[in-house]
Amino acid sequence: MHTHQNHHQPKIIHLSEIKDCLSSLNLLDEISQGFVAYSKGEAILPPVGEMLFNNPPGEVHIKYGYLNSENYYVIKIASGFYQNPSLGLSSSQGTMLLFDKNTGVLLSILLDHGHLTDVRTAVAGAIAAKYLAPVSAKQIGIVGTGIQAKMQLEYLQEVHPCRKVMVWGRTASKAKDFQKSFARTEWNVEACDDLENLCRNSQIIVTTTPSKSPLIKKEWIQKGTHITAIGSDTAEKIELDPSLLAHADKLVVDSLEQSNSRGEVFRAVEAQKISRGHLVELGSLITNPSLGRKSTEDITIADLTGLAVQDLMIAKGVFEYYKR
Amino acid sequence: MHTHQNHHQPKIIHLSEIKDCLSSLNLLDEISQGFVAYSKGEAILPPVGEMLFNNPPGEVHIKYGYLNSENYYVIKIASGFYQNPSLGLSSSQGTMLLFDKNTGVLLSILLDHGHLTDVRTAVAGAIAAKYLAPVSAKQIGIVGTGIQAKMQLEYLQEVHPCRKVMVWGRTASKAKDFQKSFARTEWNVEACDDLENLCRNSQIIVTTTPSKSPLIKKEWIQKGTHITAIGSDTAEKIELDPSLLAHADKLVVDSLEQSNSRGEVFRAVEAQKISRGHLVELGSLITNPSLGRKSTEDITIADLTGLAVQDLMIAKGVFEYYKR
Repeated sequence: MHTHQNHHQPKIIHLSEIKDCLSSLNLLDEISQGFVAYSKGEAILPPVGEMLFNNPPGEVHIKYGYLNSENYYVIKIASGFYQNPSLGLSSSQGTMLLFDKNTGVLLSILLDHGHLTDVRTAVAGAIAAKYLAPVSAKQIGIVGTGIQAKMQLEYLQEVHPCRKVMVWGRTASKAKDFQKSFARTEWNVEACDDLENLCRNSQIIVTTTPSKSPLIKKEWIQKGTHITAIGSDTAEKIELDPSLLAHADKLVVDSLEQSNSRGEVFRAVEAQKISRGHLVELGSLITNPSLGRKSTEDITIADLTGLAVQDLMIAKGVFEYYKR
Repeated sequence: MHTHQNHHQPKIIHLSEIKDCLSSLNLLDEISQGFVAYSKGEAILPPVGEMLFNNPPGEVHIKYGYLNSENYYVIKIASGFYQNPSLGLSSSQGTMLLFDKNTGVLLSILLDHGHLTDVRTAVAGAIAAKYLAPVSAKQIGIVGTGIQAKMQLEYLQEVHPCRKVMVWGRTASKAKDFQKSFARTEWNVEACDDLENLCRNSQIIVTTTPSKSPLIKKEWIQKGTHITAIGSDTAEKIELDPSLLAHADKLVVDSLEQSNSRGEVFRAVEAQKISRGHLVELGSLITNPSLGRKSTEDITIADLTGLAVQDLMIAKGVFEYYKR
């Protein structure tokens, strides 16, 4: 293969190499730093680029941006083509590109096939739980059975001692499969076909479905519960009844700006169930944990739609470890 | 290097390989087809993504889109960091990514370092000249001395027999260098330090500078002249006096939509020198050449700001030839 002498060649990092790097990184710290910088106004994150496809149906999101304090800019492409599994392909596809923000030189292509997006999303869930979840929680309720449902547990492990899990899926057999996949682990996972039961008996709930109508009712949520809502990252997707958001004592979002146009908060504002006045940004909460849970009775909700600053921090971490 | 079994690996195509492919393609036809499809409304091209940098100054443009009739979508990243030459780097950096539009799978990464953008821009200039330039032109005037100035000549060669050229640059020594670089070619190139002289004596004029104030005056342009304006692709850049656009008999743009917010037409509308009523899109002109020059006396202007459909067609052409 020829290379051109006068041009810098990007490092191409394959998925197995990316996974090797990830195991050596402190992702909670790295991505927390990204949220903090974002909430301090140190990030330039232009609006998410979107492109829709009809036949077959699909969507592409382009998230990009940089931090003034870092030497990189990132462009992350993530797509969802929901008929892919019938072709033996993951519905999620994508890649991350890391550039030198002082010259525009392409430094690295991370051929992660969507894995880094899955990881940085799970890490954000863990960060939210670290600051909001009740320490005494006896059961974690997982709503949804896909890859993100599993990964949320993987990273929750780092911030919370609870290992008892109830899982619910819109397809009951998938919840059973989920349970089986944790058979020889330290997790005690029970499949459940009654979402109300799951909600009434879990003190930490993580929702990970692409539902377009609310799944979880206000009445099901006990005092003291924390909910992390991961699934909705567009204007159409919604997992929580808007009344539940009105009922919460604390609402945290990863981005005040993005919550104007996507996610659970957007939908609850649109339904005129909440006003935006009391929202707290995750980065502000990390800086000042007293902005979070005030009592063991509080219901807290974190609504996460995903920020390019997470992509930036994870791509940076992998790249710097790889070339170390 | 490890690869993951269940994931399709993109073809990574380096610059020298890209150049090999390009020499075998009929780019004028391919890109003309792209313009035609675009003007028929068959293209989905979301708004250009933009990101600005202050220290050092730079800009990134993300152009992306697809044609309903093609199996690909493209994302093209192009940046300009104007202090790069002091570091021995080109100010232009970037890459193109080609995806399967039915699955989102990343098919190819074209490590072109901005070359494909340069080529597809030059090809668009040649297409405009093919349909608008006077066949009898005796001299081509080139305004600007950079890589795009050279490449415009390279592709004009395919559509017009004239080989006599006058070149002007804002730095006179660069025009001399430009002349020298064509010394042992079929081109007869003369450097010129008087832009008015160039304009008065050229029947085809191609402008390729990043000027932010008008360079070419209405009074300098003779009847029968064709001008292709390449340099201005933002709201700030401008090469032609707005009065000159008002004086033209025919105004062609690559995109009616983009001409609402960038390029010479945008600036002339903003200056209230022209209305948008008589603009013709390049793809419509290709389909129906009678929309173009009506007489040998007409002054015609093509204002090109660059479309993702050009990126799509050139990336597709290279990829399909490479894997052939």
